[in-house]
Amino acid sequence: MNGRAAANPADERPLALSLGDPAGIGPELALRSWLARDDAGVVPFAVIFGFEVLREAAAKLALDVPVQRIETLANTADVFQRALPVLADKDGRYTPGMPNPDSAQLALASLEEATRLAFCGEAGGVVTAPIAKSLLADVGFDHPGQTEYMAAACGLDPQASVMMLAGPRLRTVPVTVHCALADVSGLLSKDLIVARATIVATALKNDFGIANPRLAVTGLNPHAGEDGRFGREEIEVIAPAIAALQAQRINATGPHPGDALFTPRSRKTFDAAICMYHDQALIPLKALDFDEGVNVTLGLPIVRTSPDHGTAFDIAGTGLADPGATIAALCMAGDIAARRACARA
Amino acid sequence: MNGRAAANPADERPLALSLGDPAGIGPELALRSWLARDDAGVVPFAVIFGFEVLREAAAKLALDVPVQRIETLANTADVFQRALPVLADKDGRYTPGMPNPDSAQLALASLEEATRLAFCGEAGGVVTAPIAKSLLADVGFDHPGQTEYMAAACGLDPQASVMMLAGPRLRTVPVTVHCALADVSGLLSKDLIVARATIVATALKNDFGIANPRLAVTGLNPHAGEDGRFGREEIEVIAPAIAALQAQRINATGPHPGDALFTPRSRKTFDAAICMYHDQALIPLKALDFDEGVNVTLGLPIVRTSPDHGTAFDIAGTGLADPGATIAALCMAGDIAARRACARA
Repeated sequence: MNGRAAANPADERPLALSLGDPAGIGPELALRSWLARDDAGVVPFAVIFGFEVLREAAAKLALDVPVQRIETLANTADVFQRALPVLADKDGRYTPGMPNPDSAQLALASLEEATRLAFCGEAGGVVTAPIAKSLLADVGFDHPGQTEYMAAACGLDPQASVMMLAGPRLRTVPVTVHCALADVSGLLSKDLIVARATIVATALKNDFGIANPRLAVTGLNPHAGEDGRFGREEIEVIAPAIAALQAQRINATGPHPGDALFTPRSRKTFDAAICMYHDQALIPLKALDFDEGVNVTLGLPIVRTSPDHGTAFDIAGTGLADPGATIAALCMAGDIAARRACARA
Repeated sequence: MNGRAAANPADERPLALSLGDPAGIGPELALRSWLARDDAGVVPFAVIFGFEVLREAAAKLALDVPVQRIETLANTADVFQRALPVLADKDGRYTPGMPNPDSAQLALASLEEATRLAFCGEAGGVVTAPIAKSLLADVGFDHPGQTEYMAAACGLDPQASVMMLAGPRLRTVPVTVHCALADVSGLLSKDLIVARATIVATALKNDFGIANPRLAVTGLNPHAGEDGRFGREEIEVIAPAIAALQAQRINATGPHPGDALFTPRSRKTFDAAICMYHDQALIPLKALDFDEGVNVTLGLPIVRTSPDHGTAFDIAGTGLADPGATIAALCMAGDIAARRACARA
């Protein structure tokens, strides 16, 4: 489902890959993604900061990856075929599995610079490696997550950005995200669902090349409430939101019972599921597509994707990190950048 | 994961298969399951009522299934290899896809007699074909679902029975079931989780032959609440329940983040997931195992299983019904009955 924009001319600009927490699996993911660049068709990318971190990781993991320092992102393409380009010059030494405030500082600096490069147009997009949110919060990162940070970095309201999870078998969007389950009903509104779904429909069209995207909207309650027997949010909030979307000529259906929507047959009937809460969106995605799940930020002027997993401090440095989701995130960012470049041309 | 009790002597008694709504796919499922009896190793079963319904369905669907009326369940084994045995004598004629009060009456009579035969020991267990709950309610069925009905039919409190969903890749149990999502937090209690999980642990041991069952208990909130950031149920209710289970020497872990628990790697670490609400349990099961998902009732003196899908009135009579889940339910009921017979011997 991560439709490649192979027919489009590629965006000429490289992607900026943030380092993630240098004590996590981010460095290994960068190295292994570079090794897979030809097989997977990854467009040129540079890692933002952490030259010594990456060189040391390559040596320790016995990965045959030459690492080369570059002074400006514009040098990426010259280097990329023979070495992994790493933007100078913030750096440090860290023990895999042992994050500390210094490693969080480097992760934050890398994230900020990668995002800045995308926003000012030097990078075609930003791909973010995993960070530990609580550690970043301790060094001054005051956003609920990277999705909201991306909106702020673009000078926009946090609500302007929408998180979509995308794997080979499924795309899902949680309407509410990081809140207690008991608060979900109170946070849902017709306007919120319409706003999120509209951003998704536009992005599926422009960024994913789907001419008439089909959105399947879930119910909140078991069996989508069974005509009000188990809750009235479907009747009072969700169905009116779907009607409003349809009035805008958006192909939205529902409310669908959450458990029935993700069967193999049902998955063929929609391009993205608009879900009411975090686990309703993330359980099916991770059950089906964990090793290739991409977190993509929709609704922003910049392109941003990320592997949909964490820092995995427990396996950092052991060589067990699976780069599949990072490679998928790099490919998806390259495809979206190419589609946008094509639309501008 | 539906471990077969091949080494055990089979229970000599047949299974009672209820007809389900005769206007749904129940008749086709019965016919196709009989056709698969040898390949799938289905133990002898009889359909409870609906001889003409089944004969007509076989003719219309061009299925080569001789249907034979039997006067008592004890005749099942004599007939089963050459014909589908159907207990006399309630019957009727119905149009596929057009349920009505009469079809609901026959579905209810079949369910009641199949359950009675299991409870009085003539059947080794009962396998229930799909009914339409709202239609049955109109003809006097006043239970929230078949799981609670089974408990009542055994003279027990509805809370004595626990619904488990079981497929080849996963087993899940919802602690709360048919209630609004906004009510889940208020309905959860330490005692409820402990009661449900204790029944599951006992059943996995006795009915599924798992010596030391591993239970993974989910959190309620995103990321299992992240130490109270998104809700406190994990701290105040779920973790204390897990501690109480461990104090009873039950191998329970958690609270696990719901979205992380169903990845391929994580699924290998437990025998059943104890989930806090309906969709948390049913989304992963149906996403992964829809065509073979079995609904099994735990905690009762009778054996009861069911395919985990509905009446599918929309495809009734078209020949498109997939009997996979019904066959899996028949096999699972046969296995559980055999394990219990073995334990009694």
